Amino acid sequence: MNEKIKEKIMKMAGKNRDAIVCSVDEQGFPAAKAMFRCANEGIKTFWFSTNTSAIRTGHFRRNPKACIYFVDHMMVRGVSLTGVMRVCDDAETKEKFWKNGDERYYPLGKTDPDYCILEFTAERGNYYHGLEKCLFAVSEVG
Amino acid sequence: MNEKIKEKIMKMAGKNRDAIVCSVDEQGFPAAKAMFRCANEGIKTFWFSTNTSAIRTGHFRRNPKACIYFVDHMMVRGVSLTGVMRVCDDAETKEKFWKNGDERYYPLGKTDPDYCILEFTAERGNYYHGLEKCLFAVSEVG
Repeated sequence: MNEKIKEKIMKMAGKNRDAIVCSVDEQGFPAAKAMFRCANEGIKTFWFSTNTSAIRTGHFRRNPKACIYFVDHMMVRGVSLTGVMRVCDDAETKEKFWKNGDERYYPLGKTDPDYCILEFTAERGNYYHGLEKCLFAVSEVG
Repeated sequence: MNEKIKEKIMKMAGKNRDAIVCSVDEQGFPAAKAMFRCANEGIKTFWFSTNTSAIRTGHFRRNPKACIYFVDHMMVRGVSLTGVMRVCDDAETKEKFWKNGDERYYPLGKTDPDYCILEFTAERGNYYHGLEKCLFAVSEVG
């Protein structure tokens, strides 16, 4: 993979706040929703905060197979990352990613039972730009 | 469902050129890609043109379960539609959706064996706006 494409992937997936998070529902249908990420480490690991009771959290508990997708505003360039999503509802992880203002979503604070963290670990990816595409292993990009 | 939400759904899903199309791959992972639609009838049926040899076309041949997702530029509002995707490679459908300029993608023209149409039929949907969400049957919205 050339350095220019690596750079584009890092820019889109590593720095973009908005991701489309995809799960597989209990009937086997794909499901998509835009989510803001809390944090990430390169393009390998991403964290999202969400409701424990959310439909999507239930999908990932039953089936951790996941995809997150980043797209530019013109919908010309996109990066999809495929991997697994783990639902973290332990006190330590919840505390680690808690941010001021999160009370708006989780009124009981960082121990709110309806607050949890989704941790996505990417294994492989696909970069699209117009007609061009490039499959890659996440370890190649870093 | 109130008329205001119906209107928003129609505006986002019925008039937006750009959709994120989700399939399930051969290993059961969800997969997403931005696609431009060729045409639609309300929010019930959508057509996309693509390569017969595309990875996604293969996904839908094996497993027609699909989701298409529309999101605004600020990623605040979204509409997901869940249903089935049919791969149409018959001459009549290919001719019907052929557009001037498509030679750029399919050099052999409307009979190019590497050109096909994906037809998505929505059954149910989900409208998101900030913390608000609304599950709906497509027949409710029209």
